[in-house]
Amino acid sequence: MSDFTLNILGCGSATPTPAHNPSSQVIDYRGNLFMIDCGEGAQCMMRRMRLQFSRLGHIFISHLHGDHCLGLPGLLSTLALHEKRGCVTVHLPAEGIGIMRSIADYFCRETPFEIKFIPIKGAGGVIYESASLTVEAFPLYHRVPCYGFVFREKPKQRHLRGDMVRFYNIPVSSLHGIKSGDDYITPDGTVIANARLTTPADPSRSYAYCSDTAFDTRVAEAVRGVDVLYHEATYHSSMAAQARERGHSTAAEAARIALLAGVKRLVIGHYSKRYTDVGVLVSDACANFNEVIPASEGLRIDI
Amino acid sequence: MSDFTLNILGCGSATPTPAHNPSSQVIDYRGNLFMIDCGEGAQCMMRRMRLQFSRLGHIFISHLHGDHCLGLPGLLSTLALHEKRGCVTVHLPAEGIGIMRSIADYFCRETPFEIKFIPIKGAGGVIYESASLTVEAFPLYHRVPCYGFVFREKPKQRHLRGDMVRFYNIPVSSLHGIKSGDDYITPDGTVIANARLTTPADPSRSYAYCSDTAFDTRVAEAVRGVDVLYHEATYHSSMAAQARERGHSTAAEAARIALLAGVKRLVIGHYSKRYTDVGVLVSDACANFNEVIPASEGLRIDI
Repeated sequence: MSDFTLNILGCGSATPTPAHNPSSQVIDYRGNLFMIDCGEGAQCMMRRMRLQFSRLGHIFISHLHGDHCLGLPGLLSTLALHEKRGCVTVHLPAEGIGIMRSIADYFCRETPFEIKFIPIKGAGGVIYESASLTVEAFPLYHRVPCYGFVFREKPKQRHLRGDMVRFYNIPVSSLHGIKSGDDYITPDGTVIANARLTTPADPSRSYAYCSDTAFDTRVAEAVRGVDVLYHEATYHSSMAAQARERGHSTAAEAARIALLAGVKRLVIGHYSKRYTDVGVLVSDACANFNEVIPASEGLRIDI
Repeated sequence: MSDFTLNILGCGSATPTPAHNPSSQVIDYRGNLFMIDCGEGAQCMMRRMRLQFSRLGHIFISHLHGDHCLGLPGLLSTLALHEKRGCVTVHLPAEGIGIMRSIADYFCRETPFEIKFIPIKGAGGVIYESASLTVEAFPLYHRVPCYGFVFREKPKQRHLRGDMVRFYNIPVSSLHGIKSGDDYITPDGTVIANARLTTPADPSRSYAYCSDTAFDTRVAEAVRGVDVLYHEATYHSSMAAQARERGHSTAAEAARIALLAGVKRLVIGHYSKRYTDVGVLVSDACANFNEVIPASEGLRIDI
């Protein structure tokens, strides 16, 4: 596996079915785990998929409907019980802070495990940043305040050419700048172009999560060019009116967003319980976009 | 199946494992469902075991540790979404009413589905009664206020002997009294003994649930003579000290309670995650009692 994977813990919708858990995913980026939504059963799926609790630092909740957040009470309670010295940060729409803090205060009160709640407000923006990754929240178009998330690797350093470094006898102190794109100036003042000293950086990868949302072209703007897009596909096109009315999308609409945004691959999920065979949703999406992957519990996708 | 069954939804302990869900059971009594404890995943298991949400009227929560009640938020949210016109009553230790009502108020606020919370206090007593069944709460001995539950069928009516009813030409108006044990007095004043007119009533069945609790002989008093006893067996006897310290029982202690109480069958569960093979716990229990059934997810037991 690569060092940037998407793990599907649940991809059903509001009603649990024997086939699908409610929404939850875990991004594993270089061994650090980031959870996106936490439907009931998320902690059990983490155990089943061997995603270690101790590596989970941040949880991003899209909105406060039960199928996207009611695995949190159990997960936080388990974390507090078993990772006593740790800390987790939960990012969620501001309106949910009160109730989630009440739950955490009640069920995690006996341990020093720290739970931070950070509100997501207004238009979102960058809500997490490390040396190599950012997570950005952006508005979705559902019945309640709801956010999508984009995970983007920061631009990477160029690769040094060892033969050139030796040839020009470049000191270690200059290497960092050269990896960042600087030219090298020799002691006699000659400028050696960066392109002679390096090969291009690996591309920066990106992943976007959009659930729940009605079809809206502003979503395509927000996720433009990502490598992998997860977009909800609650219904088949034959139920487009119901999708719109309930603030959801059809599979064909998810594919239109993928096409408009120029993404490489589309993962669909958040299936209505009426679809016991998600093949009809895949077909619906494939009319608009070629690279469609149906989510399923336990699926891992390299970003 | 009989009309009185125990359904095991979860029989693990505090930490979820790939093998076991946290505690939850459903008693199906003549088509009415009664849930005992509601660990996370209970609603999914109801779907998997085809136990219909619409038949669930009462939920009994033993105590407010997360592995016994943190499936409630998701279950109540689902009930409110899908059984909009219905009602469910949750019986739980008084200290948990505030937090559970906050959760229900937040996540079930958009529908007219009614959720009642009834506190269990002090020594418990009869907390539910219908024409044919009672549910009694009694104290267990754990680290926080905790209750066990006994489900008892009320005494049943004797069976009329059709041949005798015809022979004595007994009017319909007298039959109810005879089924309850009355003699019959003929129009000429002759007394016909009830034993000539009826055969004995079916025995009244009973089931008791004890989790979580340390070994305590008062528990045996509370569950005396039940047909089936579920008693927690978190540890093997080799960890008796830890069991006591944490307010839990060993499998051998569960069996001692079964023996002292004179029950017919013992079901053990609430296994610590350290036991990947529960056979060692069954063996531990069988040293003290013969009829030991290890609980497992999906198991149904006729009472």
